[in-house]
Amino acid sequence: MTSRPPRTPETPPTPGTPRTPARPPSPGALDEVRRARIALGHLVEPGRRDLGELVRAVGPVEALDRLKAGAVPKALRAVTSPRLSTMDLDRFVDRALEQAARIGTRVITPEDAEWPAQLEDLVAISRPGSDPIDRDTDPPHCLWLRGPCSLAQACDRSVALVGARANTPYGEHIAGDLAYGLAGRGWTVVSGGAFGIDAAAHRGALGASGTTVAVLACGIDRPYPNAHRLLFDRIAQTGLLLSEWPLGAEPHRHRFLVRNRVIAALTCGTVLVEANLRSGARFTLNRARDLNRTVMAVPGPVTSALSQGVHEELRKPENNTVLVTGVEHVLEAVGRIGLDLAPVARAEPTARDALTVVERQVLDGVRPRKLLTAEEIAAAVGVSPRDARRALPVLVAGRFVTAQGAGYRLWRRSDEPKPPVRGRKVDR
Amino acid sequence: MTSRPPRTPETPPTPGTPRTPARPPSPGALDEVRRARIALGHLVEPGRRDLGELVRAVGPVEALDRLKAGAVPKALRAVTSPRLSTMDLDRFVDRALEQAARIGTRVITPEDAEWPAQLEDLVAISRPGSDPIDRDTDPPHCLWLRGPCSLAQACDRSVALVGARANTPYGEHIAGDLAYGLAGRGWTVVSGGAFGIDAAAHRGALGASGTTVAVLACGIDRPYPNAHRLLFDRIAQTGLLLSEWPLGAEPHRHRFLVRNRVIAALTCGTVLVEANLRSGARFTLNRARDLNRTVMAVPGPVTSALSQGVHEELRKPENNTVLVTGVEHVLEAVGRIGLDLAPVARAEPTARDALTVVERQVLDGVRPRKLLTAEEIAAAVGVSPRDARRALPVLVAGRFVTAQGAGYRLWRRSDEPKPPVRGRKVDR
Repeated sequence: MTSRPPRTPETPPTPGTPRTPARPPSPGALDEVRRARIALGHLVEPGRRDLGELVRAVGPVEALDRLKAGAVPKALRAVTSPRLSTMDLDRFVDRALEQAARIGTRVITPEDAEWPAQLEDLVAISRPGSDPIDRDTDPPHCLWLRGPCSLAQACDRSVALVGARANTPYGEHIAGDLAYGLAGRGWTVVSGGAFGIDAAAHRGALGASGTTVAVLACGIDRPYPNAHRLLFDRIAQTGLLLSEWPLGAEPHRHRFLVRNRVIAALTCGTVLVEANLRSGARFTLNRARDLNRTVMAVPGPVTSALSQGVHEELRKPENNTVLVTGVEHVLEAVGRIGLDLAPVARAEPTARDALTVVERQVLDGVRPRKLLTAEEIAAAVGVSPRDARRALPVLVAGRFVTAQGAGYRLWRRSDEPKPPVRGRKVDR
Repeated sequence: MTSRPPRTPETPPTPGTPRTPARPPSPGALDEVRRARIALGHLVEPGRRDLGELVRAVGPVEALDRLKAGAVPKALRAVTSPRLSTMDLDRFVDRALEQAARIGTRVITPEDAEWPAQLEDLVAISRPGSDPIDRDTDPPHCLWLRGPCSLAQACDRSVALVGARANTPYGEHIAGDLAYGLAGRGWTVVSGGAFGIDAAAHRGALGASGTTVAVLACGIDRPYPNAHRLLFDRIAQTGLLLSEWPLGAEPHRHRFLVRNRVIAALTCGTVLVEANLRSGARFTLNRARDLNRTVMAVPGPVTSALSQGVHEELRKPENNTVLVTGVEHVLEAVGRIGLDLAPVARAEPTARDALTVVERQVLDGVRPRKLLTAEEIAAAVGVSPRDARRALPVLVAGRFVTAQGAGYRLWRRSDEPKPPVRGRKVDR
């Protein structure tokens, strides 16, 4: 078994897109361990806790041998038997690697420097059980990748943007805007390549010439939805297209939910943009919460069914969902403490803001036309005459009030001193 | 000094509008204590902690005598001197009561059964200080009222709806809708009678034939804004119009902020509907929070400046602002525990929801046209052949799948058994 290479150093990458093009590894250089992981990734649907435990206990090569020999617990034997009986695994791996090399796709395993360490966090939340969505959340055995980035580096500072496929223009605007802002600040935008919010997020990041990663639920040679073929090509030119399913795998409905754990695990936080009550994107958010990632949501009109799911996520305090309305809020939530604090939104200061409370109270008592003395104003608003006599000169200086003799009235534009007229002929 | 009458019993009023028309008290029946409170309410702008403490220490009659004699601390003497020097207090009270009786207005003081006990909570959050907005939040000395309800009963189950004056159609819709729903369920809707959200709230409650209370920042004989003259008349017909300022008092800007503490204190909770960053309605929300009332806010589009203030309130977890999207959420937040729990929003269940995870996985592997065996389907989706053989009959029974010989394909409408044709002539 190959020893794991040391991780890339922990220094945060410089803002902008981290790009260390990983050369597609030649099939000959792939060792037995990696071939075994590729086979495991095909033999069993991803996420199974029982297989993950077996691999962690005896290594992928031995685990694969036991599967082939049927020397594994009954449940695991049962789910692998149909695929084992219909294929030659060695030939499958050879052909998959050949095809991958031909279409500019590489495969990575935990043995590679490019493997994101944070995927291992999935082990901690994976529980044995029969439900492969809610329980079995083991990390992938391998990932098929297309694109020039190092996955580990791209995800070092990354945010997932997820939401409804049948979005509204509001959601599309928000997702595009957030993605543009994040990508422009050197953050990688991760999403699922679907219609709607996902596509808006990828496009927003591309528009900022930033890095975006699409995590697919089928073979990456098989664009789904088909209408996103060109989008996926653009993503793969500067970012990454990836899948834990081998080339040719079909986009089964079930796989989208299983895939969501990878989106949540790869990123520092997940932002939910629009989601109806039954959206799979809420599922990604829950996974991110399980993983102690930052969980964020963008509110919307309460009259929109596509904000209902978002508001449910924001309603329960125990959910710890951070309400975000823009890129500053997202960066504050996922960023490094002290470095990425969002400014609290404050209104633009006005001239009136510079007044003290008493000065404002005195101003309340000044009439538009009728001249009042300081004493009359004090009586009208209930302050002391001394306070009124102190405040009035300040109000006069600030052009809130005009003084005429012993009386005061509100300032008006015609009180403005006329500018000296220039260039006029003067009689000498 | 008159002893305080016992409060109305604590049994919750029956849903619907509690209406115990209080007869306008005749001026002669008003004792010295109440006359003193009326005078104090005029002599000093509301909220002052120093005067409140004096009244609590020596009673209103003695406090007034000391004010008249100038035998009070310097600051209090300074603010009262202008009004004391320009008026005869006894005559002022006589004339105010005469005028009030003439226009169907009554005045209540803490001596009255109609006085809402919860106003005394303001004492606990009032701190001495020079800033009459942020610090001096003492309860009113008296309240001028118009309308057939008992204020104490009307506010027993009440919610304040507050927000921007320059609202959007979204905010107006939300405020009207919430008020209608609350009033229809027997809750009193309290607001400030202003343009925008306030007016929408009052109108929504009136539309449900419910009780609504407008807390004004000027004399209630002096409708402000003037365009709401008719609205105020409608409110006073079934609900209540009230102010702590005497008849004739002008709507100084400063007074609106001071008034907000009464809206917050009267109600069980405050809902912020739309507010820009500088909205005075946020101030009412903060007051409600200080008073340990329930603090709620309705989110909106993050692209709307009028939701910015709302979202700021919702963002900080320490604010304990409850995100509400409808009347059920408000009732859950302010209602009695266990009686008014809002249902968690859930999507309508579909036929697919009834399937197990494995059945759904199997369904993913069934093709629209091509017939596949149970074993082929099992291999496609990675389940055991046994699970596939168990799931397929369930899927057939549920009309997800059609069986043809040993093969399965997706169900289609034409698989529906044709209903027997009736009424057709049959050859015998």
